[in-house]
Amino acid sequence: MLAGLMQDRPLLLPTVIEHAAAWHGDVGIVSREADGGTRRVSYAEAATRARRLASALARLGIRAGDRVGALGWSRHRYVELFYGVGGLGAVLHTANPRLFAAQIADTVNHAGDRLLFVDPDCLEIAEAIRDRLTGVERYVLLTDRAGLPPTHLPDVICYEDLLAGGDADYAWPALDERSAASLCYTSGTTGPPKGVLYSHRASILQAMAVCGGDGFGIGGGDTILPVAPLFHCNGWSSPFTAPMTGAGLVLPGRAVDAASLCALIAAERVTLSFGVPTVWLDLLAHLDRTGGRLDSLRRVGCGGSAPPRALIERLARDHGVELVHAWGMTETTAACTFGRPDADETGAAAVAARISQGRAVFGCAFRVTDDAGRPLPRDGRSVGHIGVRGPWITAGYYRDDSGPAVDADGYLATGDVGTIDARGRMRITDRAKDVIKSGGEWISSIALENLAAGVAGVAEAAVVGVPHPKWQERPLLLLVPAAGAAVDPDAVRRHLAARVAKWWLPDDILVVDDLPRTATGKVLKTALRARYRDRFDAAGGRD
Amino acid sequence: MLAGLMQDRPLLLPTVIEHAAAWHGDVGIVSREADGGTRRVSYAEAATRARRLASALARLGIRAGDRVGALGWSRHRYVELFYGVGGLGAVLHTANPRLFAAQIADTVNHAGDRLLFVDPDCLEIAEAIRDRLTGVERYVLLTDRAGLPPTHLPDVICYEDLLAGGDADYAWPALDERSAASLCYTSGTTGPPKGVLYSHRASILQAMAVCGGDGFGIGGGDTILPVAPLFHCNGWSSPFTAPMTGAGLVLPGRAVDAASLCALIAAERVTLSFGVPTVWLDLLAHLDRTGGRLDSLRRVGCGGSAPPRALIERLARDHGVELVHAWGMTETTAACTFGRPDADETGAAAVAARISQGRAVFGCAFRVTDDAGRPLPRDGRSVGHIGVRGPWITAGYYRDDSGPAVDADGYLATGDVGTIDARGRMRITDRAKDVIKSGGEWISSIALENLAAGVAGVAEAAVVGVPHPKWQERPLLLLVPAAGAAVDPDAVRRHLAARVAKWWLPDDILVVDDLPRTATGKVLKTALRARYRDRFDAAGGRD
Repeated sequence: MLAGLMQDRPLLLPTVIEHAAAWHGDVGIVSREADGGTRRVSYAEAATRARRLASALARLGIRAGDRVGALGWSRHRYVELFYGVGGLGAVLHTANPRLFAAQIADTVNHAGDRLLFVDPDCLEIAEAIRDRLTGVERYVLLTDRAGLPPTHLPDVICYEDLLAGGDADYAWPALDERSAASLCYTSGTTGPPKGVLYSHRASILQAMAVCGGDGFGIGGGDTILPVAPLFHCNGWSSPFTAPMTGAGLVLPGRAVDAASLCALIAAERVTLSFGVPTVWLDLLAHLDRTGGRLDSLRRVGCGGSAPPRALIERLARDHGVELVHAWGMTETTAACTFGRPDADETGAAAVAARISQGRAVFGCAFRVTDDAGRPLPRDGRSVGHIGVRGPWITAGYYRDDSGPAVDADGYLATGDVGTIDARGRMRITDRAKDVIKSGGEWISSIALENLAAGVAGVAEAAVVGVPHPKWQERPLLLLVPAAGAAVDPDAVRRHLAARVAKWWLPDDILVVDDLPRTATGKVLKTALRARYRDRFDAAGGRD
Repeated sequence: MLAGLMQDRPLLLPTVIEHAAAWHGDVGIVSREADGGTRRVSYAEAATRARRLASALARLGIRAGDRVGALGWSRHRYVELFYGVGGLGAVLHTANPRLFAAQIADTVNHAGDRLLFVDPDCLEIAEAIRDRLTGVERYVLLTDRAGLPPTHLPDVICYEDLLAGGDADYAWPALDERSAASLCYTSGTTGPPKGVLYSHRASILQAMAVCGGDGFGIGGGDTILPVAPLFHCNGWSSPFTAPMTGAGLVLPGRAVDAASLCALIAAERVTLSFGVPTVWLDLLAHLDRTGGRLDSLRRVGCGGSAPPRALIERLARDHGVELVHAWGMTETTAACTFGRPDADETGAAAVAARISQGRAVFGCAFRVTDDAGRPLPRDGRSVGHIGVRGPWITAGYYRDDSGPAVDADGYLATGDVGTIDARGRMRITDRAKDVIKSGGEWISSIALENLAAGVAGVAEAAVVGVPHPKWQERPLLLLVPAAGAAVDPDAVRRHLAARVAKWWLPDDILVVDDLPRTATGKVLKTALRARYRDRFDAAGGRD
């Protein structure tokens, strides 16, 4: 090997906030606080505060490799935690306050967090789980002294007091860029949450890719509002992409209802916002009701599930907003693929491109394989397991003995199934655990649910595979009627029959009052499968 | 250290062309060939050809770390060299065919090139220097057998024959991302050219930064035409940024006159092009003469020297083209800073932002220091030495004994002097070696030259510092009249007097027929300083 003669400058998170401080020092963070107020912190201030935090943590005895938890909403102090904790060489565990209390305690214990940073409006959770926590030595409340609520937590530190004792001129340590910087647990619909340990390198490479013209194309003229919370996939990397480019960062705190978001977008002239489809559906409905406008907004990033066609069309037509569909998961740091039309695609083809999960951005690659691990053709029809590879994709889980998470070619099994078309676009058709295997063929539960949900009077639809003596599994469709509406299963069946192959039609359609859910609101299909597992036994079902 | 659990995927150049082949396989390169024809090569084909090349080079005995030279113009085979040579672990030395023959031979010998790839229209150069070359074992002509010209070079290989013998399924070796991939020599206005050894990592990080919204914002909808040649700073990274994003790459070959460029931009629907200011001035003049339009072109990258105000304004007003000023040098891989207005800057302030060298893009940092190395304030007035730091900035030169090129803080001395303003924008006022030090203050030769060149009848202006018994140095202005024009030195002096401080006024103004130049067309100020060194001796000059 002949080594290049380039400067050895590792990719470390503190270089991001220091870059912002040096070149975009007057730009910064607008943050809706727990007390209802709005705080503005420039990147120059945020960098200084991150330095103070790191030095103060070092004085508290936090060492490189230690884990430190955070239980809070998207606010400016949370951004400082990413830099201050990670920059010290420690690891920020971004705990999810929306989990059940027992699950939060389990992740904090599994992570081995030595400190727990707690937002004032997460204090109740911390107090509730305190007795279960095995490693937490101190609690730091993310507020100033005036905002300190009464609490019976022991050894409480006020965040602003901690910072006041820190060193504004702290020199960031030289770390290996492959060091862990943050830790996020999967939401665990199939079992206990698993920890994904992000490195500095992965976070920076992913953020650089997102800023590219094939990602969200982020530049200094942008103001970014992540609706997706900072505790999930590092807020889609917004704490890194915004300072990296000098874009403003607007953090909504806990209030992410449509009215609050519209007000914030208008007040802060937000140009780019990220969130799940329901956020944008709610926003459109709110604008319809109020006649409001979003003049500053130019594009929204949409992820979590595929955006409906009407959402894409209405955002573009009525508000001049481009919807960019991005796909990623906890295991992939944040986005890996972006659904964008090619220059020769217009009208319906362009919208179809935006609905798809899209193509890999540089750095990542994915593929679709059959049950035996053989790559399937890119024909848009061959459905298989989606694997993904790249420097910001996890190779395994934290303190997990279940063996390597990647296959021999280095691809992580995403647990999603889908297709790749001739243009290289991925379309996810199901979660692997939810796909229905009938007579050797696969039926997409998501496709049936989307169709059924389109029938008037249907509030929600869920499809699960139920064991069947002849076909292995057959689909069962559950419908929740909208408030005050009546749903006719036969009408839904006719609706489906006009739109899918005959062998895809559910063997049974049931109307139910509600569906079992996880703490984060996802339908618990494991519970549905258990409840209905004998439904199509030898006596029943289609043959 | 707690290592993150991310996949270990090094940043290697072949991953770029393989990404393009996998996700943008139908997009590709349009290339104007030596025979006058146009060739289209998709990224899928280019990746296969690069694999064939690497395997064929390995069979020829080229090993990791070996240097291989190229003497050619911007065409598709040159792109394949970057990937095929670098991907093998060898180093592509991008020789400059515009240097004097002896200088080309010196760089090939200094690099220790074992092979030399030669474009058919560079054959004469290769034949002329052949007897001076000490390490070159074989010559590969960048053509197919039909295009092979008669030559008396020994051991000539036809490029397409070499590829035909290569392995299309060659597996790229696992390399360290800090391995050298290419080698470019500075143009050497002050001494012998020095070699900058780019790593895979540096090239990829720089390219990712350029694709960002604060760089050129490159995406799959773009078609890029680099007017800047591929042998200089890797064609401003266009062989990497285009495949990385699925943008098309249009290579003009040798013909980069305005008429050829306009035709190519129109025919290939180019959206983004890069080059020095004179390229765009010539293009505007051509469009004025012909009444032509550039409908597809959305933005041009401009570097090498600051763009004139009128160029920026006319491109925007008459053609809807955004000029983005980028700054970089051989030592910085390619661009490090981009001159863009902030959201609150409009009109003259926006144009001034575009004229400036701009702000550092994430990854890079620069500073301005005095002669003692102390950082100067960011006041837009304090002129000092510009240093630059980052993972794609050189730390030293290839086979060079002159010691480290960076200071204790890791900054490379660029040899430029300039200022940084309160918004963090850099403005280069001079080359350090050309700045005039008068009575302890600095006078910018570039500022005086730009003003003098604005006087009617002046074709060109050069200012050099001449030793002075009282003031240390004083400026001498040399004027070359335009063809058929007469130039009045007193009129020029009055023009300057109305625009600069009195102590900046040249002590003497001479009208000359021409100026001494380097092979690449730069004014040789060393020769001017030698010629006029006694001009302001004790008897003469201002006091």
